[in-house]
Amino acid sequence: MTIRRIGIVVKEGLPGAPDYVSKLTAWLRDRGVEAISEQEASREQIPNEVDLVIVLGGDGTLLSMADRIGQAGRDIPILGVNFGSLGFLTEIRIDELYPSLEAVLNGEAHFDERLMLRAEATRAGQPPDARIVLNDVVFTKTALSRMIELSVSVSGSFVTRVKADGLIIASPTGSTAYNLAAGGPIVHPVVDALVLTPIAPHTLTNRPIVIPASAIVEVQPLVESETDDVFVTYDGQTGYALHQGDVVRVERAKQALRLVKAPARSYFEVLREKLKWGER
Amino acid sequence: MTIRRIGIVVKEGLPGAPDYVSKLTAWLRDRGVEAISEQEASREQIPNEVDLVIVLGGDGTLLSMADRIGQAGRDIPILGVNFGSLGFLTEIRIDELYPSLEAVLNGEAHFDERLMLRAEATRAGQPPDARIVLNDVVFTKTALSRMIELSVSVSGSFVTRVKADGLIIASPTGSTAYNLAAGGPIVHPVVDALVLTPIAPHTLTNRPIVIPASAIVEVQPLVESETDDVFVTYDGQTGYALHQGDVVRVERAKQALRLVKAPARSYFEVLREKLKWGER
Amino acid sequence: MTIRRIGIVVKEGLPGAPDYVSKLTAWLRDRGVEAISEQEASREQIPNEVDLVIVLGGDGTLLSMADRIGQAGRDIPILGVNFGSLGFLTEIRIDELYPSLEAVLNGEAHFDERLMLRAEATRAGQPPDARIVLNDVVFTKTALSRMIELSVSVSGSFVTRVKADGLIIASPTGSTAYNLAAGGPIVHPVVDALVLTPIAPHTLTNRPIVIPASAIVEVQPLVESETDDVFVTYDGQTGYALHQGDVVRVERAKQALRLVKAPARSYFEVLREKLKWGER
Amino acid sequence: MTIRRIGIVVKEGLPGAPDYVSKLTAWLRDRGVEAISEQEASREQIPNEVDLVIVLGGDGTLLSMADRIGQAGRDIPILGVNFGSLGFLTEIRIDELYPSLEAVLNGEAHFDERLMLRAEATRAGQPPDARIVLNDVVFTKTALSRMIELSVSVSGSFVTRVKADGLIIASPTGSTAYNLAAGGPIVHPVVDALVLTPIAPHTLTNRPIVIPASAIVEVQPLVESETDDVFVTYDGQTGYALHQGDVVRVERAKQALRLVKAPARSYFEVLREKLKWGER
Repeated sequence: MTIRRIGIVVKEGLPGAPDYVSKLTAWLRDRGVEAISEQEASREQIPNEVDLVIVLGGDGTLLSMADRIGQAGRDIPILGVNFGSLGFLTEIRIDELYPSLEAVLNGEAHFDERLMLRAEATRAGQPPDARIVLNDVVFTKTALSRMIELSVSVSGSFVTRVKADGLIIASPTGSTAYNLAAGGPIVHPVVDALVLTPIAPHTLTNRPIVIPASAIVEVQPLVESETDDVFVTYDGQTGYALHQGDVVRVERAKQALRLVKAPARSYFEVLREKLKWGER
Repeated sequence: MTIRRIGIVVKEGLPGAPDYVSKLTAWLRDRGVEAISEQEASREQIPNEVDLVIVLGGDGTLLSMADRIGQAGRDIPILGVNFGSLGFLTEIRIDELYPSLEAVLNGEAHFDERLMLRAEATRAGQPPDARIVLNDVVFTKTALSRMIELSVSVSGSFVTRVKADGLIIASPTGSTAYNLAAGGPIVHPVVDALVLTPIAPHTLTNRPIVIPASAIVEVQPLVESETDDVFVTYDGQTGYALHQGDVVRVERAKQALRLVKAPARSYFEVLREKLKWGER
Repeated sequence: MTIRRIGIVVKEGLPGAPDYVSKLTAWLRDRGVEAISEQEASREQIPNEVDLVIVLGGDGTLLSMADRIGQAGRDIPILGVNFGSLGFLTEIRIDELYPSLEAVLNGEAHFDERLMLRAEATRAGQPPDARIVLNDVVFTKTALSRMIELSVSVSGSFVTRVKADGLIIASPTGSTAYNLAAGGPIVHPVVDALVLTPIAPHTLTNRPIVIPASAIVEVQPLVESETDDVFVTYDGQTGYALHQGDVVRVERAKQALRLVKAPARSYFEVLREKLKWGER
Repeated sequence: MTIRRIGIVVKEGLPGAPDYVSKLTAWLRDRGVEAISEQEASREQIPNEVDLVIVLGGDGTLLSMADRIGQAGRDIPILGVNFGSLGFLTEIRIDELYPSLEAVLNGEAHFDERLMLRAEATRAGQPPDARIVLNDVVFTKTALSRMIELSVSVSGSFVTRVKADGLIIASPTGSTAYNLAAGGPIVHPVVDALVLTPIAPHTLTNRPIVIPASAIVEVQPLVESETDDVFVTYDGQTGYALHQGDVVRVERAKQALRLVKAPARSYFEVLREKLKWGER
């Protein structure tokens, strides 16, 4: 794959952003690569115009670009740069940016393939709403409701009624995000699986379960028709209330996300640093 | 204490309720005791007019009467009757109702003293809002917010900043309710303590902590002024959004709640039955 | 596959065992199939002489036959019958035995393929010790030692030093056994993965991790040369102390175990019944 | 209380120990206080001869002196100094040693009272074995046994049969030690309570429970007569196998342990530093 144009997307409020962008643009121009920043195109347009996207900033910015690349149906990689604490997604440090880019342009970079999820919510009388997410689809209660009840099936088999604060359906990538806080396991990104983790379940035996990525998960809120008690959220960025009779179907997305790997850092090194595994 | 008048409060929608109430009223009349049901007085008035309250129905109805007895500043016991599955609070079965009442009238009943919590929320320029709760004061996020951040201090010492879905401050009685679902410990009702349990904390080492009941817990939401991201709820029944600068102070209420004990059932028997401790 | 001879292995102490065996033997003879029971051959010999093994009794008996089939290098299925409470492995009830056998003989039965683990322990100056297990390889401390320390690597990458009571390496099948008690996730048997779950880790962030089944896990005890503090056990049946310098390598076994599926019971139904998922 | 003689006990293998001891001895002599080190008296004798014990080194050394002070029936405080990482018990840093001692000698020091446990194991035909522990009494399995079963009662009421790797009975002080690793809650040292925490329980609803310190806990191993499957250990230092019919009774010890408090560090500061509560 020849890289001719690279998109540059910056986390909102990142200090010194203009300097980073102009220096990066010049560096790319010197190597015959055109840079397209958010001055030149919107976040929605960028995926259609470039061969790779550089994200300067946190995991949240990267999640939103993963969504946009998915929506655009493009198969282009992301290079995520972290300022501040190491991110699980933006795992390249600022001092590793230029060597990593060099490797990308020389065709020597390594990529991680990350499974993405496709969620499709259907409601009687309305067109279905489909999303592509990298981390998780989360069903959750409102602040004032005491708990919610969800009916969960996997590939047509009824699994259980979850009575809980909510339910997380996470990809391996998302397993180290909200899933971990809710008591779910870490799932290595190479494992072809999804994780279903109830949040604060009333039935103490309702434990996290890892299912094959080929599974189709269907979740139905068990609500009275008029309430807004159950919400679905996508990658923690957007969402809405579910009504009686709505069904949300979650399965592996057709396309995966490719991430440029840090030159010299294994998955377990990132885990150790993020989770302080070496210490007590 | 002589029992002359007894209030009867019934869970909404309890099948056969009028029959239970009229039979109970007649039984009491035969023993020279006046029964006051919700036909004669509102739930707010009842605590002021009686020497004991019988709650027919679930734990929720009992919680709401505990609040009303607390608000009225009255020190009268509750006899909680459970229909259906054994409740942690309404632990007397319908077939034990008359023997238990007999014991109460003969002065032979045993009572459990249950610590209650007093929560006082203060906001600049407004009168403080005070509540009495039996189970818990809960700080929680809205469905669409990703996590909340709370500053917690105990008796003037800063404890930690909790980054989580929320935080539960539970009494021993409340320890077997929401607290248990969120991973908190069971606390025997005789222990003079409160439990602080974060809900899905991002910092995995933020573990539940049991503090003396004499402690004063202060919780401040760390929010931008304009958001409605953090809610406080009282016994899972009512609540509202907290603003920047609000402080909620939680401490032991001056009065405890007295519950009529089941004639022949220990706390551990209830635990075993409710949690299926004997099985796998 | 034509079934000509079937082995019958019975859990020790099963009441009424001789009757079950003689009735089963006669039933098979009527259908032209020879039955070989423990009267005719030892548990070690049986796998070499038959086309299928029927296990009458608990999961423990089935585990020991899985080991023997693995040791014999045979690829023959097991039909596990449970008396008493439903087993995760012996999921066929006694009243389903004959219909299930009928289906097997008619070539209409369904089989579950269960990943098995191969563990190889090496010690300087000794031949390696290899085992085939279905559930788990467990590293554990002795009763009087306070904790143990293990160095864990996955496919050559150092993962972490575990300071804990122990470490479980479980197959998906084993995920619902000891792994679940230690806080690990349920892993559906179709997922191609292993689970590493520390037991009571001192570092609270040392969470269970699911890794690809293609991984090679190497565990080294960090012990003084002379102590017997760290043990390895295989499927909870056998084991021994590890010394300084020993390495235990765990990976997917070449062969899988085939289990005859219950006619009308999904994996999730077994989970619901075993874990009481529908209840509280 | 006038301090005339101070014992000095040093963690085995502490680098530079002789220098610390001689400097400390001289400093005390200048203030008219006699120092008694392990050169002058054994660890068993020291509690009988002094008015305060200084422990130089880790929590383990302090635990062993708590036991000896308890055995001697003496009510003398301990000043625990930590080298290296902050200890929960030895919370005074080396640079705070002399100011803290100054405060002690001037009668201006503050002390923490820590509840201790008394365990008494009885076996038919033998004199009872009694111990005083500061952290915990632990019932645990051997490396090769799969799980153990214990019958637990509290103040005469049967609680449950625990099927698990083991059971921890911890004091508030011990709640941040092994109990925390096994999933138990943190209990503030001022709370008058014990914690019962099962280790890897097979019954997932067997949750940690906090009971009043006035309770008497009795634990009986459910074992066949001839096995050595269940061990009891005291503060993780010593222990032995239990036989069928043995009973271990655990209750609050008559005497508490007094610890010299660090001049300027709250319990929550120690928690934050030890558990890295401020970080992720």
